[in-house]
Amino acid sequence: MGIRDDWRSWRHVTKLDPDRPNPPELISKVVESGTDAIMISGTQGITREKVKALLEMLRGRGVPLVIEPANKDVVIFDADVDYVFIPSVLNSGSKWWVLDVHVEWIVDQLKNLRSIHWEKVVPEAYIVLNPESAVARLTGSETNLSVEEILGYVKFADSFLKFPVIYIEYSGKYGDPEIVRMARSQVEKARLFYGGGIDSKEKALEMSKYATIVVGNVVYTDVNRFLETVI
Amino acid sequence: MGIRDDWRSWRHVTKLDPDRPNPPELISKVVESGTDAIMISGTQGITREKVKALLEMLRGRGVPLVIEPANKDVVIFDADVDYVFIPSVLNSGSKWWVLDVHVEWIVDQLKNLRSIHWEKVVPEAYIVLNPESAVARLTGSETNLSVEEILGYVKFADSFLKFPVIYIEYSGKYGDPEIVRMARSQVEKARLFYGGGIDSKEKALEMSKYATIVVGNVVYTDVNRFLETVI
Repeated sequence: MGIRDDWRSWRHVTKLDPDRPNPPELISKVVESGTDAIMISGTQGITREKVKALLEMLRGRGVPLVIEPANKDVVIFDADVDYVFIPSVLNSGSKWWVLDVHVEWIVDQLKNLRSIHWEKVVPEAYIVLNPESAVARLTGSETNLSVEEILGYVKFADSFLKFPVIYIEYSGKYGDPEIVRMARSQVEKARLFYGGGIDSKEKALEMSKYATIVVGNVVYTDVNRFLETVI
Repeated sequence: MGIRDDWRSWRHVTKLDPDRPNPPELISKVVESGTDAIMISGTQGITREKVKALLEMLRGRGVPLVIEPANKDVVIFDADVDYVFIPSVLNSGSKWWVLDVHVEWIVDQLKNLRSIHWEKVVPEAYIVLNPESAVARLTGSETNLSVEEILGYVKFADSFLKFPVIYIEYSGKYGDPEIVRMARSQVEKARLFYGGGIDSKEKALEMSKYATIVVGNVVYTDVNRFLETVI
């Protein structure tokens, strides 16, 4: 069995990308960093083999493990996996990334009589705001939004669809803390997550005022700066 | 204040269309029929004036009142209105009818500092299955679905998005009870609603085995047969 810490208590989540080099020394530094959870994520080049290999390195290390699947092949409900966080991209230009991709997966499971461990599934309402990011390009996200439109998506996700997680995603770029602050003020029940460009203690502290922060790239570019973000 | 009966207890709901003639004698028959609630709905030609006029005829008659708005002009949170049921058409060909229409409405409210009475809002996951219906044409619904695909939408609505209402809509045509039975078997938390072609006691009894039934057209074509559907 995994750890199954309640994800609602997390303040700092580390994203590891199965498509990048993850040497054992790096994994040890992340595992021992004090991060609240490790999320296996990534947009491009994600295969079941790569996810399984990374999972193997992380199991039994005392840190809750999450898979955020890039595609249905990497939805894995092993005992080692505490949660599967599934993104629905609300500002995608296409209905596919909001729901049809998930319906197709469910239909697959139904046809093959495979069960879905709903108790591990945590739906995420993504709002993707960096047009240069791989996720924005893949999903055709409409990132040119007014503040009111961003807050409209947040309110809709929280009060209408009642997503447990609302994820402001700047992926690769540090976002506007004022947007995140205003988003936080709209949220009543969901947990707000923020990801993008956190590569220092200062940025980590700033965004932590409003959201659970997700730190990724800096693990691979400067692990010592990554360690500073664990506050 | 309205009645605010808990909508989860309803077994028979009557849909009235503000764009059709609603003479007082007809309204009295509906109000006294024993139906659990009256839903003011309709797809075409719906204006705020027509909805207000119908609401005026129905207020204080002892039957819970619901508005199912065709557009944002007819979202009305008056004290007489017990609930506003808001449809999201999951099998629409366009993302607009799933979510953008609602986000636009929320943005409007935010900009104008008007509050939304979320305690009266009940989101509905519509699955539209009659390609000839006005709602299917308006929303570009993909009605040519396999049983597994229908059940996939149902499961997604129930377990992923956690809609409180899942609405199988055959609008104007009597549907396949076997589909409704199977949909019911997938649902864990939501209430299943069924609408379309119920114009006899027999059909009402059949679909009531699996769902809260919604009866509409027959009110206008044969009110005595309508009365038989209240079982």
